[in-house]
Amino acid sequence: MIILRTIPELRTFVHDWQGQGLRIGLVPTMGYLHAGHLSLIDHVRPRCDRLIVSIFVNPTQFAPGEDLDRYPRNIERDEQAVAAHGTDAIFYPDAPEMYPEGFRTFTIVEGLGDVLCGRTRPTHFRGVTTVVSKLFNLTRCQVAAFGQKDYQQSLIIRRMAADLNYDVDVLVCSTVREEDGLAMSSRNSYLSPEERERAVCLYRALTKGQKLFSLGERSAAKIRQEMKRTIQATPGVSIDYLEAVDAYNLQPLEKIDRPAVLAGAVYVGATRLIDNVIIEP
Amino acid sequence: MIILRTIPELRTFVHDWQGQGLRIGLVPTMGYLHAGHLSLIDHVRPRCDRLIVSIFVNPTQFAPGEDLDRYPRNIERDEQAVAAHGTDAIFYPDAPEMYPEGFRTFTIVEGLGDVLCGRTRPTHFRGVTTVVSKLFNLTRCQVAAFGQKDYQQSLIIRRMAADLNYDVDVLVCSTVREEDGLAMSSRNSYLSPEERERAVCLYRALTKGQKLFSLGERSAAKIRQEMKRTIQATPGVSIDYLEAVDAYNLQPLEKIDRPAVLAGAVYVGATRLIDNVIIEP
Repeated sequence: MIILRTIPELRTFVHDWQGQGLRIGLVPTMGYLHAGHLSLIDHVRPRCDRLIVSIFVNPTQFAPGEDLDRYPRNIERDEQAVAAHGTDAIFYPDAPEMYPEGFRTFTIVEGLGDVLCGRTRPTHFRGVTTVVSKLFNLTRCQVAAFGQKDYQQSLIIRRMAADLNYDVDVLVCSTVREEDGLAMSSRNSYLSPEERERAVCLYRALTKGQKLFSLGERSAAKIRQEMKRTIQATPGVSIDYLEAVDAYNLQPLEKIDRPAVLAGAVYVGATRLIDNVIIEP
Repeated sequence: MIILRTIPELRTFVHDWQGQGLRIGLVPTMGYLHAGHLSLIDHVRPRCDRLIVSIFVNPTQFAPGEDLDRYPRNIERDEQAVAAHGTDAIFYPDAPEMYPEGFRTFTIVEGLGDVLCGRTRPTHFRGVTTVVSKLFNLTRCQVAAFGQKDYQQSLIIRRMAADLNYDVDVLVCSTVREEDGLAMSSRNSYLSPEERERAVCLYRALTKGQKLFSLGERSAAKIRQEMKRTIQATPGVSIDYLEAVDAYNLQPLEKIDRPAVLAGAVYVGATRLIDNVIIEP
């Protein structure tokens, strides 16, 4: 496995692989990899000839005051983990390599990024779509995978890829969970043991909503109310949002009469965690 | 020469060419081709193995009330012209092929598109960069050419290509002019014979500014004043802007102590025409 730190190095390999007609796969990550990331790799691996994992804590998707500086990093452990899953190359650039002096271009998806996480993090998704379009161009990948845990992100990236005619098959892979149901996230490392126990309340709330729905409840307000109660019963956890939205346009639903997503973000202490479940009538 | 009306047709050829390791060149146009476009083709032709000319009157770069509907079209003449210049394929999609229902993604370059033409046409350049990023992705071109007549556009596209890591060599080719100096433009077809005669005042103004500069004048205000006088002496022509700006960041200059562009836009009757000349100390 090779570690590529610069764009020219990456391009050399990509040109070589393209010249041989090889199919390139990409798993974009911010590193500090967990089983969720490895599952993305496992999904892409059989669909490509050469697999690139990018590790880049992307500054444009963090707002001032967010956790850019303390986002967890452990490149040595990440290297070992991805090598064991058949990765051909890690692309591991630094920030000036990706955003040199004078950088001023952004890829934006209108109307999907201003709800849910976008309300709390208004510049987040344009940072995501910008770096993903850069990574698509750099790696010339034909297949790429993202996690369903970031449901809104995956929807926005699919829209971006389709609208801008990227010839990339965008896979969205199921959320991988801890034994108690907590969605895997690099940010779980911020949690104290006590917070870690409490954090599962988000998944419990979502599955409670899911269960109500499966029992026939169609009122979004009632389902939200029940989810809210579960979070509020947990000390030290506060709600950023808890919503039932249309699965395709992310608009809030009153009646759940179409494919929908129950999505939530909570603060466990100072740590913001997100999760979601898909429900279909 | 083949005419490709749909994205799947285009992709079939592009995949085939890529598989053969051929280098693809692109000349993006809105059709109604003139000698300026043909000069772009002549620049790209020796730098690629397969040459695609796109002909698409791109709605996202027109604001409501602009000339989208009456923009001149003549596909039969265009076909003959580009075939005679060694074009392999015309990509000639309709608007729903490029912007299907639900389209909502834009490529934006901040800080270069709000001056000069961007003041009068605030949404113009995001339409340009969006369609160019789509065309880059669709054609997988390694070289593309744009005209210097649209200086601001060429600067923005170069910035976009660099920032988003498009592996495309962006050529900017000299403006091709009529015998009296008027810059070639599809919009010249809007002009009445009388307007056509008057239209050359823009180029005269710019060359007058250029001459003052070559004689040692460095005050942007004085050069602008002289250019303005030339336009104002021409009946039926009004100024949109006439400026001396930094050649790299397009910011207005007081003193011309670095590479600069004298750029202007005028209304000749109802027709808006643009032109520019580059000056270097």
